[in-house]
Amino acid sequence: MSEAATATPTDERTPLDRLPLRAELRGKVPYGAPQLDVPVLLNVNENPYAPSDALVADVAAAVAEATRGLNRYPERDAVALREDLAAYLLRESGVALDASRVWAANGSNEVMLQLLQAFGGPGRRALGFAPTYSMYPDYCRDSHTRWVTEPRRDDFTIDVERAVGAIADQQPSVVLVASPNNPTGTALDAATVLALYEACVDACSLLVVDEAYAEFRRPGTPSALELLEGRPLLVVTRTMSKAFALAGARLGYLAADPAVVDALQLVRLPYHLSAVTQAVTRAALRHTDELQAEVAALRGARDELVAWLRARGHEVAETDANFALFGRFADRHAVWQGLLDRGVLVRETGPDGWLRVSVGTPAEMDAFRTALEEVTA
Amino acid sequence: MSEAATATPTDERTPLDRLPLRAELRGKVPYGAPQLDVPVLLNVNENPYAPSDALVADVAAAVAEATRGLNRYPERDAVALREDLAAYLLRESGVALDASRVWAANGSNEVMLQLLQAFGGPGRRALGFAPTYSMYPDYCRDSHTRWVTEPRRDDFTIDVERAVGAIADQQPSVVLVASPNNPTGTALDAATVLALYEACVDACSLLVVDEAYAEFRRPGTPSALELLEGRPLLVVTRTMSKAFALAGARLGYLAADPAVVDALQLVRLPYHLSAVTQAVTRAALRHTDELQAEVAALRGARDELVAWLRARGHEVAETDANFALFGRFADRHAVWQGLLDRGVLVRETGPDGWLRVSVGTPAEMDAFRTALEEVTA
Repeated sequence: MSEAATATPTDERTPLDRLPLRAELRGKVPYGAPQLDVPVLLNVNENPYAPSDALVADVAAAVAEATRGLNRYPERDAVALREDLAAYLLRESGVALDASRVWAANGSNEVMLQLLQAFGGPGRRALGFAPTYSMYPDYCRDSHTRWVTEPRRDDFTIDVERAVGAIADQQPSVVLVASPNNPTGTALDAATVLALYEACVDACSLLVVDEAYAEFRRPGTPSALELLEGRPLLVVTRTMSKAFALAGARLGYLAADPAVVDALQLVRLPYHLSAVTQAVTRAALRHTDELQAEVAALRGARDELVAWLRARGHEVAETDANFALFGRFADRHAVWQGLLDRGVLVRETGPDGWLRVSVGTPAEMDAFRTALEEVTA
Repeated sequence: MSEAATATPTDERTPLDRLPLRAELRGKVPYGAPQLDVPVLLNVNENPYAPSDALVADVAAAVAEATRGLNRYPERDAVALREDLAAYLLRESGVALDASRVWAANGSNEVMLQLLQAFGGPGRRALGFAPTYSMYPDYCRDSHTRWVTEPRRDDFTIDVERAVGAIADQQPSVVLVASPNNPTGTALDAATVLALYEACVDACSLLVVDEAYAEFRRPGTPSALELLEGRPLLVVTRTMSKAFALAGARLGYLAADPAVVDALQLVRLPYHLSAVTQAVTRAALRHTDELQAEVAALRGARDELVAWLRARGHEVAETDANFALFGRFADRHAVWQGLLDRGVLVRETGPDGWLRVSVGTPAEMDAFRTALEEVTA
C-alpha cells in the first residue's frame, strides 16, 4: 500500500494502528453529542413533541403496505416522495417546484456529503462562515474537500464585503452557509444571499444554503427558496428532523436546479432511500397541519426563552431557530455540568463562553429555567 | 475554484457543464439496472418470496412503536441491532461474534463506501478480480480510490498465484473480493481466502470478502466468517437484501475485528441508520425460520435451473448464489430483448456473450424456461 498508509513501526501501536486507516483519521473520535439518559433533553435541537396517535397509525399502515414488497428493491429515484416534498415546500414557503428540482437522502448529512462528492473533493475547497455547524468540516474531510472559513462578526452575522472577498480569494467550488445558522441561530437576509450568490457566480461556485431550521424563522425572515428561480448555482437544503419532528426517520432534502439533482444522481448510492423511509416520510407529510401548529408553539416558546434569558442578564444571540445560544460564562463547562446535575442536558458548543439550549415543551423550559437559576445563583 | 472544475468555455455547454461538477463525473450516467414494469423480474437477484403476513404484522407493530419516538434521533450506534445480527450469524454460519465485531449501514453499498472512506481514498488502490460486481469501481470513484483489477481464470475462479503476485505488486490498501462473486456466482474456497489474506498481511491491506449471497452457498462451501478469529485485516460483508428478502429495507452489515468497526465509526455519518430501519430489521430477524425455509427452496431451484440450462446445451458458470450466469450467445442483447418481449427481465451483464438470471418462484422459472426456449429455438 501507499506510503501514506504505512503503519507506525513501533511496539506502541494500538489495534487501529495495525490497520491501513487513512492518516487524517488516526487519533480521531467519532462525531456526536453525548447520548445521555437525562430527563430533560435540550441538546440536539429536536422537536420535543412526539408524533400523534393519528400519525403513528398512518405511518404503521403505510409501512405495513410497503413491507409487503420489501423483498424488492425500492423505487430508486423516490419520485413520489420528491413530489410530496415539493408540495410541502409550496405550502411552507409559497415556492412552486416540481420533483425534478427536489432531491432526498438519508438525512441532511447524506445530502451534504453527496453535494461535496459531486462538487467538492480533492483539489477543491468549501468555504463557510465560523462559528457554524460542526459537521461541515467532517463532510469535507470525508469527501477530501479542503474546508476553509471566514469569521462572522461578533454578533454572528456575516460581513458581506468580507465574505464576497473571501469567495473571490479562495475560489471555493462550494460555499456552505446555514440559515438559521447552527449553533448561533442567525438567519441570512435576502440581500446577503444575493450578494453571496453573485460572488459564487463569478467563482463558478455552488452556494448551498442549509435551511435545516428554516421553519422556525421569524415573520419577515425569508427562505432562500424564494431566490431559486433563475439561479442554477443556488441550492437550499432542508430536513424532516427538526420542525417536522422526524429526527429518527433520517430524511433530508434539497431544492435546486434540475441539473444539480442530475449531478447528485451520479454519486448517490443506488437505492439509497429505503422503501420504508419513503413510506414513513410520505405518511408524515400527510400530517403537515399538526406539525405547523407545533412549530408555531415552538416559535412562541423560543421568543419567550430569549426574553427570559435576557431579562436574567444573559447575552443571547438573535435566533430564528428552535434553539438559543446564550452566555457568556467564564466557565461554561461548569454551567453545563450544573444543568446536567439537575437533569437538564444542553450542548456545550459554539464559541467559548456560550451554551446552546433547544426549545422544549413548557415543562422542559420550566425545568431549564429553574436549573439555570440555581446554577447561576 | 480550482482549474479542474473550470467549465468549458463554449456555447455548447449543457446545464450540468455550468456547474462545478467534478471532471470524473462529467458525461456519466447514474448507476442502476433498468426498473421496468415486467411480469417476471429476474434481473437484480431479489428473493422472489414476499414477506409473510406474520412478518408484515410484526414489522408494522415494531415501526408503530419506533414512530412514537421519531421526534428524537435514533440510537446512533445501533447496538441492539448489531447484537441481533451477531446472533443471526451464529445461527447461519456457526460463528460466535459480539456487537463490537458487527457494523451495519444502509445497504452493503454504504458499508463498502465507508470501508473505502476509511481505508481507501486519494493516493490508494483497491484491487479486485474481474469480472466482478459492477458497483466496485463506483465506490472507488466516489471515494477517490484507484480501482485496479486482475482477471479471473476462464472458469471465473481466482488464480491464487497470480492474485498473490498482484497484491504484492499493486500494494492495494483494500482487496475486494465477492464470494459468491457477482455476476458469475463463483465462491472462494478457504485455501484461496487464506492465501489472499497472507498476501494482504504482507501488504498491510484489508481483505474484504463480500458475502452478499453467502446464504445460498452449496453444502461444503465455507463462509469466510469462519476465518475471522485472529485475522484483524479480514472483513466479511453481508446483506439483508438477498437471502433475507429485505432489499427494500436497505440493510447491509459486516463482521470484522473491533478495530475495523471503530474505524468505520469515524467516517459514518452520525445517526446514519434510522430508528425505523433498526426496528424493521430487528423485527425481520425474528422471522429467520421463514427465511431459511425459503433459502433452501431457492437453492434447490438454482440447482434445477443450472441443470436445465446445461441440458439445453448452454454454458453455465458454477454458482453458489441465487443466480446463474449462462451463455454464450453471439448476440446476447438479442436474447435479452427476446426474453423481455416475452415478459421476462434478466440482466445483460458480465463478460460479452453471457446473461445473468436470478432464481425466482417455480412459476417465474417456468416462464423463463418457456421464453428462453422460444428465443433460442
